[in-house]
Amino acid sequence: MNYRMIGYLLGIILMIEAVLLLLPMLVALIYGESALPFLFTIAIILAVSLPLIIFKPKNIKIYTKDGFVCVASAWIVMSVFGALPFVFSGVIPNYIDALFETVSGFTTTGASIMTAIEGPSRMGILFWRSFTHWIGGMGVLVFMLALLPSTGGQAIYLMRAEVPGPTKDKLVPKMRQTALILYAIYFVLTLIMTAALMFCGMNIYHAFVNAFATAGTGGFSVLNNSIGGYNNPAAEWVIAIFMVIFGVNFNVYFFILIKRWREVLKNEELRTFLLIVAAATCVISVNIFMEMGGPIGERIRQAFFQVSTIISTTGFSTVDFNLWPSLSKTVLIILMVTGACAGSTAGGLKISRILILLKTMLREIRKILRPRSVNIIKLNGETVDVRTCHAATSYFAIYVVLIAMTTLLISIDDFGFESNLTAVLACINNIGPGFAEVGPMSNFSDFSYFSKILLTLNMLIGRLEIMPVIILLSPFAWKKH
Amino acid sequence: MNYRMIGYLLGIILMIEAVLLLLPMLVALIYGESALPFLFTIAIILAVSLPLIIFKPKNIKIYTKDGFVCVASAWIVMSVFGALPFVFSGVIPNYIDALFETVSGFTTTGASIMTAIEGPSRMGILFWRSFTHWIGGMGVLVFMLALLPSTGGQAIYLMRAEVPGPTKDKLVPKMRQTALILYAIYFVLTLIMTAALMFCGMNIYHAFVNAFATAGTGGFSVLNNSIGGYNNPAAEWVIAIFMVIFGVNFNVYFFILIKRWREVLKNEELRTFLLIVAAATCVISVNIFMEMGGPIGERIRQAFFQVSTIISTTGFSTVDFNLWPSLSKTVLIILMVTGACAGSTAGGLKISRILILLKTMLREIRKILRPRSVNIIKLNGETVDVRTCHAATSYFAIYVVLIAMTTLLISIDDFGFESNLTAVLACINNIGPGFAEVGPMSNFSDFSYFSKILLTLNMLIGRLEIMPVIILLSPFAWKKH
Repeated sequence: MNYRMIGYLLGIILMIEAVLLLLPMLVALIYGESALPFLFTIAIILAVSLPLIIFKPKNIKIYTKDGFVCVASAWIVMSVFGALPFVFSGVIPNYIDALFETVSGFTTTGASIMTAIEGPSRMGILFWRSFTHWIGGMGVLVFMLALLPSTGGQAIYLMRAEVPGPTKDKLVPKMRQTALILYAIYFVLTLIMTAALMFCGMNIYHAFVNAFATAGTGGFSVLNNSIGGYNNPAAEWVIAIFMVIFGVNFNVYFFILIKRWREVLKNEELRTFLLIVAAATCVISVNIFMEMGGPIGERIRQAFFQVSTIISTTGFSTVDFNLWPSLSKTVLIILMVTGACAGSTAGGLKISRILILLKTMLREIRKILRPRSVNIIKLNGETVDVRTCHAATSYFAIYVVLIAMTTLLISIDDFGFESNLTAVLACINNIGPGFAEVGPMSNFSDFSYFSKILLTLNMLIGRLEIMPVIILLSPFAWKKH
Repeated sequence: MNYRMIGYLLGIILMIEAVLLLLPMLVALIYGESALPFLFTIAIILAVSLPLIIFKPKNIKIYTKDGFVCVASAWIVMSVFGALPFVFSGVIPNYIDALFETVSGFTTTGASIMTAIEGPSRMGILFWRSFTHWIGGMGVLVFMLALLPSTGGQAIYLMRAEVPGPTKDKLVPKMRQTALILYAIYFVLTLIMTAALMFCGMNIYHAFVNAFATAGTGGFSVLNNSIGGYNNPAAEWVIAIFMVIFGVNFNVYFFILIKRWREVLKNEELRTFLLIVAAATCVISVNIFMEMGGPIGERIRQAFFQVSTIISTTGFSTVDFNLWPSLSKTVLIILMVTGACAGSTAGGLKISRILILLKTMLREIRKILRPRSVNIIKLNGETVDVRTCHAATSYFAIYVVLIAMTTLLISIDDFGFESNLTAVLACINNIGPGFAEVGPMSNFSDFSYFSKILLTLNMLIGRLEIMPVIILLSPFAWKKH
């Protein structure tokens, strides 16, 4: 393990965080609030990170294992320091609560322990809270790739640990260029969304924080009643549509930019994703309209918003879907697991992984029926190698075991089974709200610190697609050999 | 597909069912009840099966696919006719309800739609109900293998479709001999258990029906309050211990018989199974004692009984564990999924499959940490080939998808999520009771017929380890080629 190089990289990431903290500090100053919580945090970060980056290590080679450790550590150290403004400002006095909130932010989960979000002198802090989603959205690593000179060939390992989902098309050969392109798309889409929200009547502050939370598919809101608090149907449509947009593989936008429409059209994952969104919206619209009445147009909007918020793993809400009939709730619980497309900012299992899983199952059945037939699995028109198929099934198995174990451990708090299971699903899939006691109108504040730490770990595990965190925690990784 | 041979085999199975129906008829006569429901059923079965078996087909070759179809059909036709006595006697007037109950019996699930079990003139019918567990226990196919002359080499395919779980040690080379040995063990253990229950003060009728339901790990009881209704702690201990015994791979008993202790001791699945039982009993004892008080001895008995009933997928109950604290309930829900050992009469995923899954996960992690290390998976001291590992992970994925789909579809009935999910788990794992509205003191009677049919299908799917039923339902299998 190249500890020196990992330390150097983490130092750079912390420096970037210090710079990023200037933005919420500026917002605080504009609204006449104290800048001290941010200033103190920046000072502490500088004190820690400067010694790490003064001397660039001679040996800059890092391997897969180091890559995994580096990525996992990056999220942790950013959260450890990113939690400080919440504590210093007194908005979240307890550090573990603040850490939960910050990890929830950087992992773009959006699960909150704040019982009341609105309050005096919080414009800067709430801006930072939403901004963590945006920073987390494209990943600490895309920063690192884009800003760090010459990690050379080793970058592929970092990419493997970072880019969400099992597929990874080679857009352009160079890693740094790829990162810059993806980042530019992310930036422009966020700006378009901000403009659209302002067009719907939101002021610039609210437009920005909601665009940040949507772009990162995070879901922190600055109102107690989330997006429902705006009573703004047009803004709800805008946000719902952009949640779907940010759930799409960013490669698709790149292909659109360079006008390779054929690549877009043959994208099976995209088609499946849009089909699931449409089907789930139909089922829920009909179900809630039949069970609860109300104007059908409003029901369709509510259904589409909630489907879009859950499948994109954002976690905003406009209504208390916890009160919906069982069928609609079960559809949403299943969408919690599926997640959106690989290569997007969304969490969850990812549609492409699910497609590979389903195709592997079908192959197993075909094998028994026609033992001598050739069975090749294709995704987006290209052959998926056997190794990827096995990785997807193993991933799924580990994922289910982790969910079961965490649900078991947090059940010590004696909430109901539905609360416990959906709390874990909401965290590991980076969604935010679950059902019952952790429903959209509730929060995670009542869990014990033990459960909060476990759920925090689940957010990290989910965001980093399990392996990096497991490796970080594994005694294997730290052995010299 | 060799339709003639499949028809012939099904005909023989139905004839066996007709013979077996004589036993409950005898019981009915002894208790002065009408024998007509059984007589009518036997007459109908003979009318259907005789034409099928008059001429033995010339071509007796059957292939894997036919084997799967044959096994799945066998359970279905036995249930279709086995449901008739319930309808004819008026105990379950509706045929779909009766079919649910009978499939639940033959698949050794024990989920019931009967709102009151005790009643006048039901000794014969309730005997038949419990007897279906015992018949189902070792599988229609062990019958077929043991009683049917010379299916020769093809029998291996049937065995593959039938013997529960991924491992299958070759006890003795010949299939029929194996079947006879397993069957003898089953028979003797049932008799020992009956004697033990009589020793605890049960009369011969109750001792037999409970031994049947335990041996098959079924769980139908003849009392409204299940085993709790006897108020007999000694009998509870006996039943709890025998539920564990019937959850062990029958090969272990064979090895004990031939005194190959080394084979028994190196059986990793057995050790893991007993360890899980012990650990779960400890956790639940402490949890319910601390939350609900009461004499600790009684709490340990209750905990052990409920752990043993759930992990062995029997489904008896002595207390309403639905009222237990969340931790205990979550432990039980996880045990619902694990099930007991492969090669036992239990349902669920099976411990050996879970061990393979966990070891496959660990291998994936090791692969990243030490890419060049050799990673061989061993179970019970023997190497598990890669094919078996992939089969286990695919099986798991299909299993989870089936659970999710069924939970979604039955949620149309608008029960709560916990009820829906645990109802599906209780059926696909052949347990019986779930939680909340389908808890141990409730039943499945309130579900719609649509849900009952789906859950019935789940019992079959679970009992036959998914593939045979999927193949039976697949249009592929019925195509000529």
